[in-house]
Amino acid sequence: MASASLNTKPHRRPRASDYLIASKRCELGNLERFLQMGKLILSAGNLIHRLQRERGASNVFLGSGGTRFSGELEAMIRDSDQQQTAFERELMEIQGELTLHPTSTSLLNSIAAALHGLESMPDLRHGIRRLEISAETAIHAYIDRIRHLLTVVFDAAETVVDPAIAGMLVALVNLMQGKELAGQERAWGALGFSRGRFDPALSRRITHLIDAQEQSFVVFGQFAVPDLLALWKGHHLEPYWQELQPLRGLACSAGRYRPLDAKLAEQWFALMTRRIDQLKDLEDRMEDHFHRRCIERYTEARNALAHEEKLTESLDESGYAPQPVLVICGTSHPDRAGNFTHSEAGRILGRSIMDLVRQQARRLDQVNQELNRSREALEDRRAIGKAAELLMQHQQVGEDEAHKQLRKLAMDQGRKLPEVARSVISMSGLLR
Amino acid sequence: MASASLNTKPHRRPRASDYLIASKRCELGNLERFLQMGKLILSAGNLIHRLQRERGASNVFLGSGGTRFSGELEAMIRDSDQQQTAFERELMEIQGELTLHPTSTSLLNSIAAALHGLESMPDLRHGIRRLEISAETAIHAYIDRIRHLLTVVFDAAETVVDPAIAGMLVALVNLMQGKELAGQERAWGALGFSRGRFDPALSRRITHLIDAQEQSFVVFGQFAVPDLLALWKGHHLEPYWQELQPLRGLACSAGRYRPLDAKLAEQWFALMTRRIDQLKDLEDRMEDHFHRRCIERYTEARNALAHEEKLTESLDESGYAPQPVLVICGTSHPDRAGNFTHSEAGRILGRSIMDLVRQQARRLDQVNQELNRSREALEDRRAIGKAAELLMQHQQVGEDEAHKQLRKLAMDQGRKLPEVARSVISMSGLLR
Repeated sequence: MASASLNTKPHRRPRASDYLIASKRCELGNLERFLQMGKLILSAGNLIHRLQRERGASNVFLGSGGTRFSGELEAMIRDSDQQQTAFERELMEIQGELTLHPTSTSLLNSIAAALHGLESMPDLRHGIRRLEISAETAIHAYIDRIRHLLTVVFDAAETVVDPAIAGMLVALVNLMQGKELAGQERAWGALGFSRGRFDPALSRRITHLIDAQEQSFVVFGQFAVPDLLALWKGHHLEPYWQELQPLRGLACSAGRYRPLDAKLAEQWFALMTRRIDQLKDLEDRMEDHFHRRCIERYTEARNALAHEEKLTESLDESGYAPQPVLVICGTSHPDRAGNFTHSEAGRILGRSIMDLVRQQARRLDQVNQELNRSREALEDRRAIGKAAELLMQHQQVGEDEAHKQLRKLAMDQGRKLPEVARSVISMSGLLR
Repeated sequence: MASASLNTKPHRRPRASDYLIASKRCELGNLERFLQMGKLILSAGNLIHRLQRERGASNVFLGSGGTRFSGELEAMIRDSDQQQTAFERELMEIQGELTLHPTSTSLLNSIAAALHGLESMPDLRHGIRRLEISAETAIHAYIDRIRHLLTVVFDAAETVVDPAIAGMLVALVNLMQGKELAGQERAWGALGFSRGRFDPALSRRITHLIDAQEQSFVVFGQFAVPDLLALWKGHHLEPYWQELQPLRGLACSAGRYRPLDAKLAEQWFALMTRRIDQLKDLEDRMEDHFHRRCIERYTEARNALAHEEKLTESLDESGYAPQPVLVICGTSHPDRAGNFTHSEAGRILGRSIMDLVRQQARRLDQVNQELNRSREALEDRRAIGKAAELLMQHQQVGEDEAHKQLRKLAMDQGRKLPEVARSVISMSGLLR
């Protein structure tokens, strides 16, 4: 009995080293979940891309009274369906992880909203094919479904609490947001060109969408890695970008004074699709980059864990020596520690564990500081989106009008846009 | 085969209602964890209370050259040991929850630091009993261990992300912080009175501790419920509080001019202990209040879940009817929705699910807004504590001196204290 209790380490009491290791394991578990979030974001992004294209083509189809793009539209719908299946498969794969472990209540709820929107896609398409609904109604229905998918992306990105990779996701979600605004520009423009005219409201909408894209890309630029930022800047040197500008000009202003050649609709659609596909290419590269960084961080963290497990094990063996060992760790006055040290060896061992704990604490603190910047950027964007949504619901206006109201409020009050947005949200009880 | 697939609901695809329910379940899981965090905070608070008293008595003992409080100290040590066992038992009970599910990497690490500090208590006491260490060294060793335990409390409080209860924890941790500063005041004062004199540095220390207590109690006052705040204010009307003030006066200034009656040490210890025990009583009431609110919230959430499970089940049954159902949910233009509605019943059902999703989303948004206030207050306090710790380590100064430096930086730069603290942390790489 005596020899057994000497040889086996008693595990009745919780030990510092156990919790140090648990802290490291917890980091590993987090990184695994970030990888899954990356895959979810990727498949949501793919589905969004297909729905954006389908939306644009639907508008050419509806705007032309069903004479253009009928075949293209059917091909795009098949594409969307495939991506929807892939998205749902991805959800099924991580369903256990998402629902068994408490991750993010908001994420789960936004997935519910996104799935609910997708469930009615067949009926929306049915209405479009039979020309039973207006182009405006159709475009709003698509915008709505895509917005729910983007919210899933935002919520998933918010669960990623590692500074080395969170910034990449801030860049990514802003790119996706900008791309969606470009997609809306394509859709509304397709409607105007295929009808052969832009009324003032439509032109204002296009102008707003161009401005709002820029804002998203500014934040993207602040967080994107240099290579990808350079790639994005390179897009604007390509010939198609130059060809696009006069069409944008027509859509924003000239269009309302004279009837336009309806054939411009195809040209517009092709040029904007070129633009959006390039953004999608960039999005894919960013996701790839994110995935690789996650795996790197995971490997680093796993190696660090293995190293510390070995280290604490060896410390434990000496630490459980029969001699009591005095450990003056974490004292704010290390110079005085010598006063009551009984065992020099013990002190060194004690310091080693405490050094590991402190090192981890310091790293976590810096991690949190760096994360705050990413989080604030995400939080700002989310607040603006939510506030706009509230105004849309309450005043029954479109997204562009809601954003205009927010900007006006901010200007009138001399406050920043995210601040105003937060005020709107906190007062939302009054908006009902 | 055919009838089977008609009667059983196919579960191959992820459904909106599943995720809505999962979102609610996730909230329930969170509330369960908050209850555990409350228990952990309670047992850490009990241990802190005993260590505080032991620290004060140690200082009377050491300050009097071992002539006073010898018996009292032994009784207090037995008390502390009991509470340490209770704290460790609590940790063992929630160890699975803490380490298997990723909760908070920081919390796990701070538990490691706290346990590591506790492991060396026997040696510290050994040194005190044999008068082998100075009173200053002993008090710093206690302060250090208590600080690690308070960090556990802070980290545990930070994981509580429910606005109805997070504010209570902000009040609680600030009360605990103020109480610890009062405990330090008791210990340093006990040293001065038992030695019969206060040198200028010791008097400055006492002055600082009194100021810093006030600051903690201001934040406590902002978040405490009215009943408990009134109770706290009531303390200052009691006779002992009036008796304490002249002794504080001696400790802060007069003490250095004339030798003091060493018997004042017992009086000081008794009055300050009265004060601190009242704060502990308040702490216990707050913990009890927190516990009850958690259980109320849990019951509410469980009832809401049961209600929605029933509701979505009945919706599912109709939703899986063979007729395709058009659901225009979440559209920003509900007035236009009628345009392409095929089934009035479907629309109503669709709206019901979407209403639930929206209701949850709106609630979560408001929850997050309200949480921000609590989080900021916690985050401010944590940043100040961390920055002070960094300064202490780097410049080998005491806690009070570190806080003084921070306040001076803030004043010189015309910035707020938490802001300055965050700058210090973000520059901590330079401080090595």
